[in-house]
Amino acid sequence: MKATTLFTLLLTVSITGYTQSTDEKDIKKIYDEALTRGESYAMLRELTTKAPARLSGSPNAAAAVEWSRHAMEQFGFDSVWLQPVMVPHWVRGNKEVAKAITKKQGAIDLTVLALGGSIGTGAQGISAQVVEVKDFEELKNLGEKGVKGKIVFFNRPMDPTLIQTFSAYGGAVNQRGAGPSEAAKYGAAAVVVRSMGSNLEDYAHTGGLRYAPNIGKIPAVAMSTRHAELLSQLLKEEKDLQFFMQTTCEILPDAPSFNVIGELRGSENPTQYIVVSGHLDSWDVGQGAHDDGSGCVQAIEVLRIFKAIGYKPKNTIRAVMYMNEENGLRGGIEYAKQAELRKEKHIAAMESDRGGFTPRGFTMSAPEEMKNKVKSWKPLLEGYGLTDFNGEGGGADIGPLAPQGVPLFGYLPDSQRYFDYHHTQEDTFDKVSKRELELGAAAMAALTFLIDSKGL
Amino acid sequence: MKATTLFTLLLTVSITGYTQSTDEKDIKKIYDEALTRGESYAMLRELTTKAPARLSGSPNAAAAVEWSRHAMEQFGFDSVWLQPVMVPHWVRGNKEVAKAITKKQGAIDLTVLALGGSIGTGAQGISAQVVEVKDFEELKNLGEKGVKGKIVFFNRPMDPTLIQTFSAYGGAVNQRGAGPSEAAKYGAAAVVVRSMGSNLEDYAHTGGLRYAPNIGKIPAVAMSTRHAELLSQLLKEEKDLQFFMQTTCEILPDAPSFNVIGELRGSENPTQYIVVSGHLDSWDVGQGAHDDGSGCVQAIEVLRIFKAIGYKPKNTIRAVMYMNEENGLRGGIEYAKQAELRKEKHIAAMESDRGGFTPRGFTMSAPEEMKNKVKSWKPLLEGYGLTDFNGEGGGADIGPLAPQGVPLFGYLPDSQRYFDYHHTQEDTFDKVSKRELELGAAAMAALTFLIDSKGL
Repeated sequence: MKATTLFTLLLTVSITGYTQSTDEKDIKKIYDEALTRGESYAMLRELTTKAPARLSGSPNAAAAVEWSRHAMEQFGFDSVWLQPVMVPHWVRGNKEVAKAITKKQGAIDLTVLALGGSIGTGAQGISAQVVEVKDFEELKNLGEKGVKGKIVFFNRPMDPTLIQTFSAYGGAVNQRGAGPSEAAKYGAAAVVVRSMGSNLEDYAHTGGLRYAPNIGKIPAVAMSTRHAELLSQLLKEEKDLQFFMQTTCEILPDAPSFNVIGELRGSENPTQYIVVSGHLDSWDVGQGAHDDGSGCVQAIEVLRIFKAIGYKPKNTIRAVMYMNEENGLRGGIEYAKQAELRKEKHIAAMESDRGGFTPRGFTMSAPEEMKNKVKSWKPLLEGYGLTDFNGEGGGADIGPLAPQGVPLFGYLPDSQRYFDYHHTQEDTFDKVSKRELELGAAAMAALTFLIDSKGL
Repeated sequence: MKATTLFTLLLTVSITGYTQSTDEKDIKKIYDEALTRGESYAMLRELTTKAPARLSGSPNAAAAVEWSRHAMEQFGFDSVWLQPVMVPHWVRGNKEVAKAITKKQGAIDLTVLALGGSIGTGAQGISAQVVEVKDFEELKNLGEKGVKGKIVFFNRPMDPTLIQTFSAYGGAVNQRGAGPSEAAKYGAAAVVVRSMGSNLEDYAHTGGLRYAPNIGKIPAVAMSTRHAELLSQLLKEEKDLQFFMQTTCEILPDAPSFNVIGELRGSENPTQYIVVSGHLDSWDVGQGAHDDGSGCVQAIEVLRIFKAIGYKPKNTIRAVMYMNEENGLRGGIEYAKQAELRKEKHIAAMESDRGGFTPRGFTMSAPEEMKNKVKSWKPLLEGYGLTDFNGEGGGADIGPLAPQGVPLFGYLPDSQRYFDYHHTQEDTFDKVSKRELELGAAAMAALTFLIDSKGL
């Protein structure tokens, strides 16, 4: 080996060694800040207390916008502003009523929630027979003859044998999203969907439906998993039992709202952006603590941590609180539209929208070489529980940036408890673990730091 | 390449491929059983309802013994029996009282729990000044002059920057275990220890102390972390405030109790044993749900799963519910003693005693080549969230088997929430996630299956 080669080699080793060790120290600084002086948990307590149930268009959603702006201003970010966006405005109305009218046991109350975006039955309600199906194939086989004038009851559970609960959700949620219009095709009077929950529970999970164009709208509700089991049992005993449901939900005209954006200006490339984000809206039950208050406060916390440890990002880092993920995605679409209009170069966008649970890794939607670059950082991240970088995907709200070629990253926490709370009255602050939430914020800050400082 | 070599290669690939695929299928069967027809969650509900607060020597501990025997008999294990063991018998007495008597604000009630094994103050209580220290070094520097007649207040928090909470616990728990005798050396009247909790909480964490031989015993309590902060603040304002504490706990004579053992007889080597285990006793507050009801029902569930899926183990698989992990380890010691007396060859012993949380991996205390063998199975386990096989250790109750050369394995769930509940009133059934518990049971069954079928 020639002396110069040796020298070059030693220099390389030395530089690499030095860089590695600096990165390690910087990442430890990020975690120490999050875990000892972290603000994410206090922020989440405030957000869920002052603005629980932040459905788009509601007064609470407006309160959440104000809270986010105020929080980011208080932390002294370089700029904080509101990006206007018109959002759907659906209101639930009175507490829903559902009853199975049986010959043997009389009327049995069943726990339901209207699906977001559903039309209501009106005060008079709907009474009809129920036909239970597992999927659209079964529905099709029944056809108009078996369905017309009846209430279709979609009762396919989330598959418990799938280890990732999001896969189980993915395998069941078409019943909720597309079920109402599929049933309407055959003349159904209304739809009852088994809640998208991992377990047997006493409360229902709401969530959005999507009416297909050119098919009449019919009312739809989600039923608690326990009552879905009960209804199924009752139908076995009494096939022609009458079902009564009453919902007074309404679709109002679109309402004005906002995405809330805060930024730390880049020291080298102020017009290049990295987005860290969550969505500010939630369903109108519970407090939207895991979905997605957690993601919002984690996004703010990333910027706060950078300021607190004195990290000057090369690129501009934006915390974006999107409005209207749950029933329209208007905020995500508007943000991407404005980014394109203003020719803002986005280096990366990251979202946390899988709950404030203990870290597992990140999902990625990016070219292979960028994915490999991120995977090369695994030795820096594995000690913090971040071991899974295999999944595809970013997040719903950042998805609209994909056509602009922006690489997308999704924070991936453990999924086991998410569908215990998702879209229910149980999604409350007390279900969030302080350390788990903080570790998530630190994980997002660590990956943002690596992307910003080393490039993709 | 010669034809025979090619043939051998193809055969090897084919056999390896086949084995791999069979193992994969068997492990999936285990998980499917645990997640669709699992009994661990229902068992835990029963155990924590019928026998909460199962401190050694208590009626509830006896009820837990009966419950475990009955549960394993109901599942039709090949044999179920009780192994007698004498255990310490400590009782808490009346609800503890602690007050800071301040000049400014008068008496302030503080939340404490007597430490397990502590002597009581008696009904008259103890009043004295308080001296706060962070560690034994600080205590030593104060010496008899600074400590005599006073109450020593150990107030070093668990280090929040340590990612594994068990490391943080390990770095703080000597204050509880050895603190009382260390303080007694310098003539302290009593000891108050900051609770071993990850966060600021309103409830105290109890736990065992160990009085050193030949040093006088003094009463000791654990204080809620929030009140430890408060007391520290009060002491800053008023250094000589009086502290009053009253505990009526007592050490009674040793009491008879049992380890509970169930087994599935090995089809090839019936006199070779694999132990899967948890400990049946808990502290006398809360329900002992995570610590360690979870481990017990997971151990039973391993055997139940094998029976349900028709897996005939080569070796005898024993589910062992140890008695008295919390304040004596008598059950673990007795089991190892009997194993040695009866010359029972133990191939492996596994314990679950880190809570019923989402899986991360296994710790191991075993020769390097055995560890490597287990690590070679990672491709079969990683899809189930089992990625961490780096930690050293087995479990407290199986530790006494180590001198007999038994390789030890500890189920390693995520640690972030464990010290929110550990040894407190909050360690209740509702804090356990059904899926997380089931995944833990399946993880233990999968590793037991691999050890049994492939050897170590």
